[in-house]
Amino acid sequence: MTSLQLSAKEEMVEKLLDAAARGDLTQVSSLLSHVPSLINQKGDSGWTALMLAARNGHYSVVETLLSHGCDKFSVNSSSQTAYDISKFWGHKTVSNLLGRTDEGCQRVLPGCDLQQQENYFSREMLERLSAKRSEAAWLEAKQRDPDSVYLLFSNLNPMVCSSDQDQSEGGESRLCRFSIEAVEDLLQKPHTVLIFLGVEKRKGPSSPPEATREPPAWFAINTDEDAAELLKRSREKNCCFTKMAHRDLLKFSEEEAGVVAQARSVLAWHSRYSFCPTCGSSTNMEDGGYKRRCLNSDCRSLKGVHNTCYPRVDPVVIMLVIHPDGNQCLLGRKKMFPARLFSCLAGFVEPGESMEEAVRREVEEESGVKVGPVSYVSCQPWPMPSSLMIGCLAVAISTDIKVDESEIEEARWFPRQQVVESLLKGSRPDLIIPPRQTIAHQLIRHWIGMNSNL
Amino acid sequence: MTSLQLSAKEEMVEKLLDAAARGDLTQVSSLLSHVPSLINQKGDSGWTALMLAARNGHYSVVETLLSHGCDKFSVNSSSQTAYDISKFWGHKTVSNLLGRTDEGCQRVLPGCDLQQQENYFSREMLERLSAKRSEAAWLEAKQRDPDSVYLLFSNLNPMVCSSDQDQSEGGESRLCRFSIEAVEDLLQKPHTVLIFLGVEKRKGPSSPPEATREPPAWFAINTDEDAAELLKRSREKNCCFTKMAHRDLLKFSEEEAGVVAQARSVLAWHSRYSFCPTCGSSTNMEDGGYKRRCLNSDCRSLKGVHNTCYPRVDPVVIMLVIHPDGNQCLLGRKKMFPARLFSCLAGFVEPGESMEEAVRREVEEESGVKVGPVSYVSCQPWPMPSSLMIGCLAVAISTDIKVDESEIEEARWFPRQQVVESLLKGSRPDLIIPPRQTIAHQLIRHWIGMNSNL
Repeated sequence: MTSLQLSAKEEMVEKLLDAAARGDLTQVSSLLSHVPSLINQKGDSGWTALMLAARNGHYSVVETLLSHGCDKFSVNSSSQTAYDISKFWGHKTVSNLLGRTDEGCQRVLPGCDLQQQENYFSREMLERLSAKRSEAAWLEAKQRDPDSVYLLFSNLNPMVCSSDQDQSEGGESRLCRFSIEAVEDLLQKPHTVLIFLGVEKRKGPSSPPEATREPPAWFAINTDEDAAELLKRSREKNCCFTKMAHRDLLKFSEEEAGVVAQARSVLAWHSRYSFCPTCGSSTNMEDGGYKRRCLNSDCRSLKGVHNTCYPRVDPVVIMLVIHPDGNQCLLGRKKMFPARLFSCLAGFVEPGESMEEAVRREVEEESGVKVGPVSYVSCQPWPMPSSLMIGCLAVAISTDIKVDESEIEEARWFPRQQVVESLLKGSRPDLIIPPRQTIAHQLIRHWIGMNSNL
Repeated sequence: MTSLQLSAKEEMVEKLLDAAARGDLTQVSSLLSHVPSLINQKGDSGWTALMLAARNGHYSVVETLLSHGCDKFSVNSSSQTAYDISKFWGHKTVSNLLGRTDEGCQRVLPGCDLQQQENYFSREMLERLSAKRSEAAWLEAKQRDPDSVYLLFSNLNPMVCSSDQDQSEGGESRLCRFSIEAVEDLLQKPHTVLIFLGVEKRKGPSSPPEATREPPAWFAINTDEDAAELLKRSREKNCCFTKMAHRDLLKFSEEEAGVVAQARSVLAWHSRYSFCPTCGSSTNMEDGGYKRRCLNSDCRSLKGVHNTCYPRVDPVVIMLVIHPDGNQCLLGRKKMFPARLFSCLAGFVEPGESMEEAVRREVEEESGVKVGPVSYVSCQPWPMPSSLMIGCLAVAISTDIKVDESEIEEARWFPRQQVVESLLKGSRPDLIIPPRQTIAHQLIRHWIGMNSNL
């Protein structure tokens, strides 16, 4: 752009700002139709046309500027938006217009990626109602409510009915749901653990309040009673307790997977944390299964609030590392993986460590590759036993691989094309990636999707 | 755009693609200088000019397209980039050119925000060297090394020297560093806990290998010996053990804050988790302080890998909720806060819950406000005792506030202008926000910064 063109443009900007300040709708419209790029320009004062129109209460000019896609969140040197300015000067109709929310959330957080990836185990079909956990009378009433739903776990494995006759690997599983009368006897047994999961979320504001009954509450039971005897409680056929946690727990619908994630994580905590880590005494369950209290009245854990009394969630970083050339990604395999299966690297976040530093440390420890920028993508609760998988993309700043053999067997750069083929065609002779229910799969898909229209 | 203009543009695109495919550098340059926007256009085949030039090995055309800012990560309908194509067709010089990394990481992860906010407690000045934790001989040698640095904690409070004579509130603190001979006797005491922190990171590849000694290792000791006696070990004056954890731990340099975060979190774990939660037996420390093993040989925790044996990190979501109008944010205060201090809402991630769902649940529980999209911003290790604060921005989809008084005392929508003034001018009669070392402060600053040039 020559300096002549520059000053011509500056002149146009000044014309638009002047027209907006005066409320000259005709000239504002005319200028914008000729040079649409003027719309968000600032004058020497740091004010946009929208701010000036808002300052002087010119409603129709503000309306026209907004209809042309003007940025209403732009600010002047005092960090005031047009909305702030109109409010300050008392132009109510204008500030109402500028305060409207119909432009959607993207305008509220510009620059943020608000497209949320929903991962398996993440959907919440229940309201957890944490405030109700300490209301013993409410909880007891819900326990006895015939509408309440009970899930049955044996040794942390949920009881399921399989939809397929042959119970083949691909089949979907459904949770067996019981009412109180079918499980009441189990609740009397000393080793039974009962936890409150929440109540079903209402689906939309459809029915009038008087017509709606309270939504059903859900509970989960873990018991050490004989599994074969337990199965007889179900009227459905093809019932069983899941066996292969890592595989069988991936067969639920998205909704049930979320319930299983919550129930299994909390039950697993009770199964491993029944003694007080601070003094070694026995503990009692409280708060619908969300707290354990030490039975030794002298224990330090009873003074103040301590995490020893609450369920544990372990943050884990899992990351797809991209080659500096942008065309390859780093995948690794553990000895225990099936042949040809490669996945993202992962590891626990350590105390006093940020997620991003954990990504850098784990990648370098496991593969020898140094990582620069890290970008969070999405997360996934992983109930084996209770991890929070934090999924990131990361950019490598070195490429030589040196594997830590105590951690992984092999790590390799895979060209995008090979990864795409494995994604599209499933099992390939050269590379199998983890199934869609895993965040590793979703990270890989996310990276591929960034540069293509898969 | 009229259909006539459209077809004129289409014609230009076809001309460019044809010239690129033929290797006609003169025409490619001429077309781009007249209509720069042609550069990334695809023809009916889904191929760009860059792909066609790469397909046919026209090096100088590829070079010219790149110098004009062409998107080298664009893909055809088979998800192949120009790089993939050149590699497939064996044009090595072209694929080398396309594989170069000099365009930086932003090009590798387009659309990702790679500007990392570094929060207090996040910096890592040590390499943790987790693989060395299990090498007893190496660890012992480092313990005896006169270059090794020991930090001293009494009841989880680090020993510090204050730079100010008057030890006023604003002063910076420095960690007291000891050598092995100054603390050797403490290591013999039964209640002393010793953990390995790591070795100092080398700063750049400056000195030749033969000239560099091994970087010093760092350890931390927690002891219950008399604090006054411990202080006599330091040759510096103005030494003390920090008292107000939440305030005094915010006075370190960024580098030392990171070390304190790691050391205090791990030491706090040992102080609360000295008994096996699975069976109640005593445990032994292992792996330089990163593992505890149950002394009961029948304990289930010894079979397989269990989180009971490893330090605990509690993921916490902390979020700045933005009003649907984009001009206000939701801040709350607990009863224990100093007067006029408001901060972001926050809460622990529960088992089986994603970060984003935890944000929605906590905000609704504490304030009654419903939240739609959630966007991760940055995180912060918080060593009181061992949280990982996961900082998010969130967009409200309802605005009525109904506070859960058991959680917070008050929550309010604050206009951006008021928040900006509090950020710029510090204490204000109407609103005080948390100090810069907190992620709450940084989230607020991030939101303000999104729409202004503060």
